[in-house]
Amino acid sequence: MITPQKNTARVDVRRFDEASSRTRRDAVAVEEPLEIRLSVPGHGEHAVAVTMRTPGADFELAAGFLFSEGLIHQRRDVTDLRYCTDVEPQEYNIVTAHLRRGAPFDPASLTRNFYTTSSCGVCGKASLDAVEVKGCLPLPDGGVRLAPEAIRGMPARIRERQAVFDRTGGLHAAGLFGPGGEAGSLAEDVGRHNAVDKIIGGAFLEDGLPLGDHAMAVSGRASFEILQKALAAGVRAVVAVGAPSSLAVDLARRFNMTLIGFTKPDGFNVYTGSERVG
Amino acid sequence: MITPQKNTARVDVRRFDEASSRTRRDAVAVEEPLEIRLSVPGHGEHAVAVTMRTPGADFELAAGFLFSEGLIHQRRDVTDLRYCTDVEPQEYNIVTAHLRRGAPFDPASLTRNFYTTSSCGVCGKASLDAVEVKGCLPLPDGGVRLAPEAIRGMPARIRERQAVFDRTGGLHAAGLFGPGGEAGSLAEDVGRHNAVDKIIGGAFLEDGLPLGDHAMAVSGRASFEILQKALAAGVRAVVAVGAPSSLAVDLARRFNMTLIGFTKPDGFNVYTGSERVG
Repeated sequence: MITPQKNTARVDVRRFDEASSRTRRDAVAVEEPLEIRLSVPGHGEHAVAVTMRTPGADFELAAGFLFSEGLIHQRRDVTDLRYCTDVEPQEYNIVTAHLRRGAPFDPASLTRNFYTTSSCGVCGKASLDAVEVKGCLPLPDGGVRLAPEAIRGMPARIRERQAVFDRTGGLHAAGLFGPGGEAGSLAEDVGRHNAVDKIIGGAFLEDGLPLGDHAMAVSGRASFEILQKALAAGVRAVVAVGAPSSLAVDLARRFNMTLIGFTKPDGFNVYTGSERVG
Repeated sequence: MITPQKNTARVDVRRFDEASSRTRRDAVAVEEPLEIRLSVPGHGEHAVAVTMRTPGADFELAAGFLFSEGLIHQRRDVTDLRYCTDVEPQEYNIVTAHLRRGAPFDPASLTRNFYTTSSCGVCGKASLDAVEVKGCLPLPDGGVRLAPEAIRGMPARIRERQAVFDRTGGLHAAGLFGPGGEAGSLAEDVGRHNAVDKIIGGAFLEDGLPLGDHAMAVSGRASFEILQKALAAGVRAVVAVGAPSSLAVDLARRFNMTLIGFTKPDGFNVYTGSERVG
């Protein structure tokens, strides 16, 4: 993973304890915008999104975002990912993915917004329908089988590899765990959706999707958006340190995913797909 | 605050402890989309955004979002906020704010995206410039003065009033604290930006903006987006339980805000504006 920008910054901070205060230098996680562009032969270059992210794994983030939004589908369709480094000061804050000529591309996908079409409606049910319209089908049974002790250990195994968290005390993380419980790639970001995109994009760029025999652990809560991204990547089990939302549970149930929350050293909750646990 | 939809849902969960597992009923926080629309005499009705939120204080959320995005400016400009309840199943998932005839309105504001314009650039500096372009100026000195013991107590005072968190174990919150340290309005949501919008929108609807003599405490981390919303509402001090990002610190410094992070019963860090503490 390439990191042309720093992911932590030094700041002066005045620390107040119960009795006194003093000034010291401290590190904070960097947050900077990343503009994600898609260049399509015959269709030009389009700014697809701007996300506030922690620099690092920017190509993975761009690829993961474009993949989970349904704008790119296969590794071989992407000929190149590049920073736009010719304009100061946004150096390293614009990434363009270049599609190969002839790659499948639907121009409408650039402006698609599933929620605001009246035919679709605006509610949880319609949000789940929209995920299916996007091409996601319920996942097959099996794929992963997670031992309870492996699940209980996942938060600590993510945490011990969080280099930026160590310096700043606050950053989301996502990490993959293989079929034997072995730790795979890990990503950190100020945005939890970005951390998930970095993981998925990393697998995309290694032509490793779908991730059917992997579980994904996330440091925060499990929302609709996180589950949707995991589903697009074929991940069968999402293990969250925090609480799931109602719509995350609904999505996991409908698409046959295993969803685990409140994961701690002494236990966890399985909301859906408990047959993959044990 | 009106809550036509439930904010928690009951689900079956399989709870694994170290030695055994059992099935029980549990509550999760509801996550449902809310479409926010703006109706402008002579310009029609526009879908401005869809946000995944926890139902409750939906009018406050809509007003706060529209205000912090610079689409509405004064209480008297909004004649009405209404649910679109005539179409099943999105009942109570669409809120329209109606502008009065003659209210200031810039049609370009509906499609404005500060980051993707090339003149603006894509970087932290440009993001801060964009906040100023939007009309936000550095806040005056003073406004609030926070006693260290009041700051240390804010997380607990928010937490003790979080009704949905009590049932679900996981939800963001934002709360106001007045000049004497007294607790003001509180909002909960699966999205921390929504919780902040609910607080700001509540003040907007009571014609209580700017919130110059209030501090805002947030349960999570302090990001650029959170600071930007607080600034738009004139909030002089943001007290976060979690870590701030680099760009949150930069924004607070540039706009003369007090930014506090890692707030715990035994201490906290002041990143900017420490003259308002003590």
